[in-house]
Amino acid sequence: MKYSKIPLSQTVVTLCKTHNVKHIIISPGSRNAPLTIGFTHDDFFNCYSIVDERCAAFFALGIAQQIQEPVALVCTSGSALLNYYPAISEAYYSNIPLLVLSADRPKHLIDVGDGQTIKQKNVYGEHVLYSTNLKLDLKDKEHKSTDDELPIMRSIENKLERFLGLQKDIQSFNESEIHDAITVARLKSGPVHINIPFDEPLYETVDELSINPKPFSIADRTEKIDEFEIKSLLDVWHSAKRKMILVGVLQPNSIEEQWLQELSDDDSILVFTETTSNLHHPDFFPGIDKMIAPLDEEAFQSLQPDILLTFGGMIVSKKIKAFLRQYKPEDHWHVDLFKANDTFFCLDKHIKLTPNTFLKTFLPQVTHHTKSDYKATWLKLRQKRRKLHDDYLKTIPYSDFTVFNILLKSIPKQSHLQVGNSSAIRYTQLFQLRKDITVFCNRGTSGIDGSTSTAVGAAVANKQRTTFVTGDLSFFYDSNALWNNYIPKNFRIIVLNNEGGGIFRILPGHKNTENFDTYFETKHHLTAKQLCEMYGFEYSKATDEETLNKELDKFYNVSKQPKLLEIFTPSTINDEVLLNYFKFIK
Amino acid sequence: MKYSKIPLSQTVVTLCKTHNVKHIIISPGSRNAPLTIGFTHDDFFNCYSIVDERCAAFFALGIAQQIQEPVALVCTSGSALLNYYPAISEAYYSNIPLLVLSADRPKHLIDVGDGQTIKQKNVYGEHVLYSTNLKLDLKDKEHKSTDDELPIMRSIENKLERFLGLQKDIQSFNESEIHDAITVARLKSGPVHINIPFDEPLYETVDELSINPKPFSIADRTEKIDEFEIKSLLDVWHSAKRKMILVGVLQPNSIEEQWLQELSDDDSILVFTETTSNLHHPDFFPGIDKMIAPLDEEAFQSLQPDILLTFGGMIVSKKIKAFLRQYKPEDHWHVDLFKANDTFFCLDKHIKLTPNTFLKTFLPQVTHHTKSDYKATWLKLRQKRRKLHDDYLKTIPYSDFTVFNILLKSIPKQSHLQVGNSSAIRYTQLFQLRKDITVFCNRGTSGIDGSTSTAVGAAVANKQRTTFVTGDLSFFYDSNALWNNYIPKNFRIIVLNNEGGGIFRILPGHKNTENFDTYFETKHHLTAKQLCEMYGFEYSKATDEETLNKELDKFYNVSKQPKLLEIFTPSTINDEVLLNYFKFIK
Repeated sequence: MKYSKIPLSQTVVTLCKTHNVKHIIISPGSRNAPLTIGFTHDDFFNCYSIVDERCAAFFALGIAQQIQEPVALVCTSGSALLNYYPAISEAYYSNIPLLVLSADRPKHLIDVGDGQTIKQKNVYGEHVLYSTNLKLDLKDKEHKSTDDELPIMRSIENKLERFLGLQKDIQSFNESEIHDAITVARLKSGPVHINIPFDEPLYETVDELSINPKPFSIADRTEKIDEFEIKSLLDVWHSAKRKMILVGVLQPNSIEEQWLQELSDDDSILVFTETTSNLHHPDFFPGIDKMIAPLDEEAFQSLQPDILLTFGGMIVSKKIKAFLRQYKPEDHWHVDLFKANDTFFCLDKHIKLTPNTFLKTFLPQVTHHTKSDYKATWLKLRQKRRKLHDDYLKTIPYSDFTVFNILLKSIPKQSHLQVGNSSAIRYTQLFQLRKDITVFCNRGTSGIDGSTSTAVGAAVANKQRTTFVTGDLSFFYDSNALWNNYIPKNFRIIVLNNEGGGIFRILPGHKNTENFDTYFETKHHLTAKQLCEMYGFEYSKATDEETLNKELDKFYNVSKQPKLLEIFTPSTINDEVLLNYFKFIK
Repeated sequence: MKYSKIPLSQTVVTLCKTHNVKHIIISPGSRNAPLTIGFTHDDFFNCYSIVDERCAAFFALGIAQQIQEPVALVCTSGSALLNYYPAISEAYYSNIPLLVLSADRPKHLIDVGDGQTIKQKNVYGEHVLYSTNLKLDLKDKEHKSTDDELPIMRSIENKLERFLGLQKDIQSFNESEIHDAITVARLKSGPVHINIPFDEPLYETVDELSINPKPFSIADRTEKIDEFEIKSLLDVWHSAKRKMILVGVLQPNSIEEQWLQELSDDDSILVFTETTSNLHHPDFFPGIDKMIAPLDEEAFQSLQPDILLTFGGMIVSKKIKAFLRQYKPEDHWHVDLFKANDTFFCLDKHIKLTPNTFLKTFLPQVTHHTKSDYKATWLKLRQKRRKLHDDYLKTIPYSDFTVFNILLKSIPKQSHLQVGNSSAIRYTQLFQLRKDITVFCNRGTSGIDGSTSTAVGAAVANKQRTTFVTGDLSFFYDSNALWNNYIPKNFRIIVLNNEGGGIFRILPGHKNTENFDTYFETKHHLTAKQLCEMYGFEYSKATDEETLNKELDKFYNVSKQPKLLEIFTPSTINDEVLLNYFKFIK
């Protein structure tokens, strides 16, 4: 085995291994050479080389999103680690564990005019769960200089002793900080930052470790059920006549079928899910906007729940947020191991359990079900809306709306769907997805900045067929995502190209002025064709329903290269079709 | 005229105008719509639309680098402003004035689960000179709700009064914060951050301003000359036998010819300049590495100055840094209006003047010139090195080294040269550039992340012919820089494509292993061809000296599109040629 000669590098690499951090995404650099040498010479680690740190971080995020374990990022000093920041903030708000290992210069070389040097300490501010600055190893020579005060032999002995003592303190500090950082990343499921100073020489290697880290126990995530709290919740639950459950971003298979069935057996419960909830039952309400967008005040009043139970991460639907903020429930409980947002300004309880543990504990204790027509009424409306939805599809011309209807049906069985932000996820929400499709979207910050890289990382980690659906702006924004040697051959990208930020046409701006075109819609005439040629993707395109169906027919076939399908839609009618939809289904 | 209806937006836009902030780079978004509306409807401003915020910020940096005035960046809420961060850190370390105007949600909507929302306050930490969070305008309705405690009319009156008073306080706070932020950006020449909360509705416009900002005086940069200090400096100067002047990054024409001549007239003064110093005199020493790389200990001792005077920003040459850290001068003075790095750990004085003001004040008071052979000795060595340099060129095969020799000679007269970081700037430093070429390079953080965008921004601002020379990794990293509708037709890019990070082959790594190729050199087989097709650049390529000369012959001709020349060099011999160079010129 080959190791970096630098003890601090050995310590970081060894503790990552002890903590089972397997995936290491490395961006090239010199200051981080000790880490690169350490990680890449140990077969325990899966190392990936990605040049653009912004993409590297989103790629890591994609892996961590799938494996739900800390994934490490390794970069050089200077502005490199700032390029991680967009993904770090996404990880923070999506509760995805990331471990940033940034190489740094020794303290005395910071802010004295050396190149590739910034103030790296705590650079991610409040967007990481833990941040630490490791200490530089002492140098051998530091105890070898002469000392005039003492007889020479005693002096050397003392100095050596002091040196060894200090180095032991430093070693112990570093070990415990690395241990704590990875533990926080894992247990609290979020990003942490370890900043690591290295002094030259950076490239020296040795065949044996010179460190021997103390053993430590790896803490497990625990859930504490408070029986007394459950009892008091039951009282409120039993007395509520209208119960609404709203589910945000959730990992697939988070909740056992049994509990979903129990929820649906209760006539007083409505379960609203989103595409990103990965939760299915015939009696649930997966199309939130379709249900509530056309409602009037009276209808809103009859939908207003007594109690609101929420699970999971961010909610995509702005309409349900606006509704619940205005028609507040009497009680709002959020069930989540990590955090609870007061999204509707009426949060009463943060139940610190996984949704499954909570339901498993709670539902068997529910002694009576309120007789109610809450569910029946809204199921009836759901039926009507679904019919109108289908009717509408028959009346409209080729547009983003029809394209999403077709392409979502084409997604292969038992596969993963990654969705870009903005229009892509909002359209997807309007259609009912099959239960066998697992959906992911970066909803932590809802940025357009790294969705492609995330999708690539996820596809690498999960080994499932993955299709990524995105708008054009988001796709071009993250075009460096394709500069990646790890993209699986069965990875598929679908770009909806409406030549600009179509979503802005739906907002109340001032359409069809030069200002609007340039600064809001940001019109362009780019295509993904050249990027495909550059990065080895098989490219095809569709410009109408016929070519779309034809291309989709063969799009998922086995191929030698990953594929990209670019679907052009007419920007000038997309907004009308969408706005009319909400009128039509009323 | 059309204005956003939101008073806070009107205030920001109006004060930018008062402060003569003319260039506004806007990235699309909804939360920032009030600012976009305000800026784009006033012809006073030059607005630019750039989607990728990382590129937008470096583009702004390029403009500000040229005009030396604050340039504004406008983005939406969420992770958008994190993508500015790499350019912000570059601006901070290069003393370039940037004004970040980030739209944000109102405080009560932060961290409650709304989309595109992060903790924007102070997000740039210590890498901005000023950071402020403006206050949300009060809403009309906030004084319209009823109040049971007082008779209805008095109540309304009181509320209105209180409302108007509060709104006045808010308005006054916001005005003074904006004023202070822009003033700091201008006077201290660096990045500042104004975070601006907006509540919905965001798109409403009015025809008249509803605000009337207080007048204020715009402060000018002042220089205070301390005569007493100058006297004490003169004493030291007069007694020094060997004086070294080392110049880092400097704007062109920073120092009048007269003072350069006076410096060169003194036999005890050596003036070391870099490519980025933009300072020329036949007796100066522009090739630092060429001079000092081959020196032995004895030579170093005879080069060691008594006094070191430094001007300008960062120093590129690592070798001179290492030399001066080991062979410290007795005195080190740094002359700069803004800051002084203790680069050599022996800084004695920060003289807070521009170099020209300092020389203008100081040199006429220098009463005697020490008789010295300091300059003569080193000029002789310079002569020898230059000859060996020329000789070496005749012996070597086609490689990065020969390519730089040829291409740097081809740069058009009286034009601007922008250089990418890493290999590109280091090679450029080895050659003597003509006086009529003005050189820029992002040396603040020396990142490879935004050099192309910076060069594009600079070319847009200075209206001069601009050629940008870059390595392949840096070019592909910032490929979105080409997604830009403002690139002048005479803009030229030269990409040195050695299929990876060639600089790593020069470092003491372990070449020619799979690990090295993947994680250090990051080998690839990409070309810039497809990007040129995608973004409307005329593309040509060279693969040897003959094709290089042929292509360069016509490269600078008038064209309908900007052009890119990709020069392929053999990665496996580049490092040998460079390392042998330093042996040869010894």
